[in-house]
Amino acid sequence: MTHYRQSLISLFIMLFPFAAQTSAQENRIFTLEELIPGGKEHDQYVPLTAATYQWQGNRLMVIENDSVWELINTEGKSRKKLQLTFAGISGSPAVKEQRVNHLTFTNEEETVILTTDSGIGTYDLKNKTVLTFFNYPEKSENHSLSPSGQYLAYTKANNLYLLDSIGKEHALTNESDRAIVCGQPVHRNEFGINKGIFWSPDGNKMAFYRMDERMVSDYPLVDASARIAVVKPEKYPMAGMTSHQVTIGIHDTRDGKTTWLKTGEPADQYLTNIAWSPDGEDLYVAHLNRGQETMQLKRYNSATGDEERMLFSETHPKYVEPENPVLFVRGSQDRFIWQSERNGFNHLYLYDTHGNLLKQLTDGSWEVTEITGFDEKGENIYFLSTLPSPIDRHICSVNIKSGKITQHTTLPGIHTAQLSYSGRYLIDHHTAHDNPGRIDLMDCRTGKITLLNKADNPFAGYRMPTVDVGTLKAADGVTDLWYRMVKPADFDPAKKYPVVIYVYGGPHSQLVNNRWRYGSGGWETHMAQKGYILFVMDNRGTAFRGLAFEQATHRRLGTIEAEDQMKGVEYLRSLPYIDSERMGIHGWSYGGFMAINMLLRYPDLFRVGVAGGPVIDWKYYEVMYGERYMDSPQENPEGYEKSSLLNRAGELKAHLLIIHGDEDPTVVLQNTLQFLKASIKAGTHPDLFLYPGHGHNMIGPDRVHLHEHITRYFENFIDRNSP
Amino acid sequence: MTHYRQSLISLFIMLFPFAAQTSAQENRIFTLEELIPGGKEHDQYVPLTAATYQWQGNRLMVIENDSVWELINTEGKSRKKLQLTFAGISGSPAVKEQRVNHLTFTNEEETVILTTDSGIGTYDLKNKTVLTFFNYPEKSENHSLSPSGQYLAYTKANNLYLLDSIGKEHALTNESDRAIVCGQPVHRNEFGINKGIFWSPDGNKMAFYRMDERMVSDYPLVDASARIAVVKPEKYPMAGMTSHQVTIGIHDTRDGKTTWLKTGEPADQYLTNIAWSPDGEDLYVAHLNRGQETMQLKRYNSATGDEERMLFSETHPKYVEPENPVLFVRGSQDRFIWQSERNGFNHLYLYDTHGNLLKQLTDGSWEVTEITGFDEKGENIYFLSTLPSPIDRHICSVNIKSGKITQHTTLPGIHTAQLSYSGRYLIDHHTAHDNPGRIDLMDCRTGKITLLNKADNPFAGYRMPTVDVGTLKAADGVTDLWYRMVKPADFDPAKKYPVVIYVYGGPHSQLVNNRWRYGSGGWETHMAQKGYILFVMDNRGTAFRGLAFEQATHRRLGTIEAEDQMKGVEYLRSLPYIDSERMGIHGWSYGGFMAINMLLRYPDLFRVGVAGGPVIDWKYYEVMYGERYMDSPQENPEGYEKSSLLNRAGELKAHLLIIHGDEDPTVVLQNTLQFLKASIKAGTHPDLFLYPGHGHNMIGPDRVHLHEHITRYFENFIDRNSP
Repeated sequence: MTHYRQSLISLFIMLFPFAAQTSAQENRIFTLEELIPGGKEHDQYVPLTAATYQWQGNRLMVIENDSVWELINTEGKSRKKLQLTFAGISGSPAVKEQRVNHLTFTNEEETVILTTDSGIGTYDLKNKTVLTFFNYPEKSENHSLSPSGQYLAYTKANNLYLLDSIGKEHALTNESDRAIVCGQPVHRNEFGINKGIFWSPDGNKMAFYRMDERMVSDYPLVDASARIAVVKPEKYPMAGMTSHQVTIGIHDTRDGKTTWLKTGEPADQYLTNIAWSPDGEDLYVAHLNRGQETMQLKRYNSATGDEERMLFSETHPKYVEPENPVLFVRGSQDRFIWQSERNGFNHLYLYDTHGNLLKQLTDGSWEVTEITGFDEKGENIYFLSTLPSPIDRHICSVNIKSGKITQHTTLPGIHTAQLSYSGRYLIDHHTAHDNPGRIDLMDCRTGKITLLNKADNPFAGYRMPTVDVGTLKAADGVTDLWYRMVKPADFDPAKKYPVVIYVYGGPHSQLVNNRWRYGSGGWETHMAQKGYILFVMDNRGTAFRGLAFEQATHRRLGTIEAEDQMKGVEYLRSLPYIDSERMGIHGWSYGGFMAINMLLRYPDLFRVGVAGGPVIDWKYYEVMYGERYMDSPQENPEGYEKSSLLNRAGELKAHLLIIHGDEDPTVVLQNTLQFLKASIKAGTHPDLFLYPGHGHNMIGPDRVHLHEHITRYFENFIDRNSP
Repeated sequence: MTHYRQSLISLFIMLFPFAAQTSAQENRIFTLEELIPGGKEHDQYVPLTAATYQWQGNRLMVIENDSVWELINTEGKSRKKLQLTFAGISGSPAVKEQRVNHLTFTNEEETVILTTDSGIGTYDLKNKTVLTFFNYPEKSENHSLSPSGQYLAYTKANNLYLLDSIGKEHALTNESDRAIVCGQPVHRNEFGINKGIFWSPDGNKMAFYRMDERMVSDYPLVDASARIAVVKPEKYPMAGMTSHQVTIGIHDTRDGKTTWLKTGEPADQYLTNIAWSPDGEDLYVAHLNRGQETMQLKRYNSATGDEERMLFSETHPKYVEPENPVLFVRGSQDRFIWQSERNGFNHLYLYDTHGNLLKQLTDGSWEVTEITGFDEKGENIYFLSTLPSPIDRHICSVNIKSGKITQHTTLPGIHTAQLSYSGRYLIDHHTAHDNPGRIDLMDCRTGKITLLNKADNPFAGYRMPTVDVGTLKAADGVTDLWYRMVKPADFDPAKKYPVVIYVYGGPHSQLVNNRWRYGSGGWETHMAQKGYILFVMDNRGTAFRGLAFEQATHRRLGTIEAEDQMKGVEYLRSLPYIDSERMGIHGWSYGGFMAINMLLRYPDLFRVGVAGGPVIDWKYYEVMYGERYMDSPQENPEGYEKSSLLNRAGELKAHLLIIHGDEDPTVVLQNTLQFLKASIKAGTHPDLFLYPGHGHNMIGPDRVHLHEHITRYFENFIDRNSP
């Protein structure tokens, strides 16, 4: 249950900004140990993060090593003044002499959250005292401190517990069957779910998920690193099969009682996007039916568990996908923001608590990608958007009353924001194709920008592979698709280059955008250093381009995506400097599916392919994601048949390397095994590699080995046909 | 429990005689579909078998299609006369109209055993009537007809059952725990064990094994071909771990009672080589301690279960390995033959039932490989031997009284025999390097040979790869090792050829001997057709060369074998027509271990290796085989460390493809997974392929794919270094 939907997007699109390293050499080759996260020398290239800057109300704080400095005071004056040191807190007996490793400031309070390696607590900034501190109980996970700091909720194995302020442990659930899991994320982290414990704003109550998986079949993962190999069964509901059943409990810390929401039938519905009303009395839950066509937003009485009202519903013949809980307007008890793709793009809607739509706040053929926050009076909402280009993210705000939209950032690129309590200032973290990362303080009123920190270009002084972007028309002849192309540093248009297409192509992803080097990662640099051209394109079905763009692939995954990718292939083949006899393709997860899919649909075009953790047949993928895009195998047998790579295993002509983590709980190994079986039967010869003990992605030092392995495969075969 | 020790020797040494196909073309290339068992066109090349000839007393019978002919009558006169047809029996209501598919004649009786696809029974030759017939009960296995034909014993799941002559089923065991298994082979088929049901000669009693595996850890095999992948736990006691506990029951059909032999402690001893006394009163059992240094032959009273006598014991500081039960001299109640390697070679010893050694019957630096039988009066014992050369097998006899040994066959090659009741005649099945198989009738008195059948050379008329044998000195400078070398048909000594060493190298094996084409199989032909030279050598540690030869490797598997194989490599490198830059190695099972072992010990010599189902570390192999050769990890930690390939994974320079069946119950996948893990950690890059759903060997059509896959790997990399 702890596998993020995002894992499908794969670590390949990890942000890759640098903060160190220059030299005078012109043609230095960067190694995989430097280029790949997990590499021995990769630590030198620490990404620039805005996390060291935090707002405490309207004061801007920065953490440098173990010291907290104030950069802007409550009067808005800029000055750097030492506030406190971690060591000063660590000495306190209240934290049991443990080393404080982080402080988390809150926008509105003098109380901050402190963490050590083995505990969490609260600290009063004004009085410089530790207010509360909890050691994490042994084997506890999913720690969640109550807003008041008086309680620590956590899970041990499948049950949910609470530590009170005198350190007494209370078991809130007592499930003896390990297939009933409490206090953890449910629905395999789809629908934006990433936690299972939800404190009410006042900290008196706590909502939590309970998931009954007893009726779900196990996928047997095997840990063969143990001296005696052991089975680690993973509850894995596959498309069309019986799914788990979720309910929501409300624990009241004042009387120690738990109330269950009367969420009703059908038992396999999805209960998503939990949010508390500001007064801590009501709980909002977005119900989604298993078919995912209809969302109903409901309000429950947290004291009785009764449904108070179905506020409104959304429906779509393909699917609706609520991923953001209701967000109450700051200072309001009766108005909230709802994000919806109902008009074709993700936008903001203002509702009252009766379910009346008061106003559509944003509109247009662009998307709100994230809400950043409100200003002090709740008059303006700050958000990130794809305005004016889908490959950029700008910080914008909308005035709730007037509907006026202000774009606060002007430099193209990817901006993210941390807003001060008043909304007057924000921290702008910004990257762009030519900007490895910088952090500015922005005065939203004047637009004035003050540089706070800036990453050095780690490649400064070197002749590096170039990265360019552009657009091509999709297979529909109308839609623009963005691509990036990486060329060797010494690129010569009179020569012929081998090319590797890196593909993902699945929902929720965007590989090409205006971040550092247009998102081009270390492996692309590595391959370009070896004389390859790299090509990456976001086909229809991917994210941030609106609902129709995404839903073009519905019930036929792999078809439209392949047609679009072929437009990229045709473009490449039209270029004089591309050697169309030496084309390869590589992708991971959905991209693994796509890489094999392309090899089998267009067997004469590619010489080499590498597919990692590939979905081979959507019937082996899980219910929530799989049925959203494909419906169930019972409802869409033809679609499943046509998208299955098993039926086309005999078409393989290229050299194909399939790589899989043998304990992959996300795309289970069954996919790859069944493809091998089908290939053997059909007389074709894919190759294989497994990363023992790894899940869906290889992380740590093995990630360097992985990229070396992939590179060697292209090097071995890009020049030669199969024997 | 149903995995033969022999499976380790791998299917590569499958006998490969042909019986069809000639043509006029000179240079036809034979395909893998023709050359490999399981191939689409391989059925044309049906091996010549002697199984169609059977003795019924002194009458020679032959089964041709569905007809049984008499070739020699009771008076020794040769004539061909139709005896009966299967169809004649099939019509009988007694066999429920089922099609008879085989008859098994017995040497002494008029009663024959008949089988159909779904049942078994007895047939009276004289009166031409079906005496008894049993339909196999649903899900029954391990069928064993009693000598009288009155009972059918069998297993269903883990229990043992009996059908009586009126078709009533009796459960002889009633174990509810599936980890207690009755009536099946035990001790993982080591010590010559291949069944779990042993009828007394008169058919009144039945001995059977009971194996308690509750204390043995499971290895989790996963069947991912099921829609919902399922775990198939395999009880797999690994070297040094807790092993199973075996006992022996005696069921008396007359009173329906079961008596258990009082075999005593320690509970993890091995109870091997079960044999009945001729009168059906006593049971002989060879006890072996878990350390395998001491064998005690004991006689039990089958009525009481009491141990009557410990007849004698054998001991060796390395190990003893009894593989043949006592064999009573025909007609005698008190004298039996015992096979033993006690003087360094496998020979025959005559004992009385008090345990007195009466006489050593054979002696010398050669081995008895199999006892064929006795003549009518029990005066002469027929056997196969390595006299005069270890690569041949001749049919010999020894006179018990005089000790005189007669060698009945003269043509060099591999002979096997079926003896007539009188011992005057035998059927000699004979192959040799230039003889694809023939079957002769031999008059042992006169030596006169009459050809009965003869396989055609399937390659007649074609220019085929040549096969030669020779000997090299082992690394000890003294011992002769036999090798074979396969050269392309158009071999030109002025050219340079790539070479592939095929290796097995483990106990109980002999790859090079004087059978058809010196044992060279279809894949060697295939590779030679592609221009490779193939080289195969039996190093010390392999079979039929005496105990010292085999035990040279004790407690240090992989060391001596590698040193010996290096003598082969040195020889190859000394040959002007061998391209020592293009050397490869391939092996399966123990040979997989050896192939990787060679690559890691001599990393600069090989460019390519392919290892199938390899043992990687003997701590992952089973108790019976593993502890015999290595002792336990606790007793021999240094030996295990030195033989482990995990510790040397960083030495890999060659291209290495590891192939494994993902449901291999013999060499579990853990071996390969842990080698991959060690290689990843060490930064080396083996390649991998899995055959989903396969066990230790790939059989059926997939075997062709396997050899194509192996061939492609050599073709891909024999000419090139790693990138």
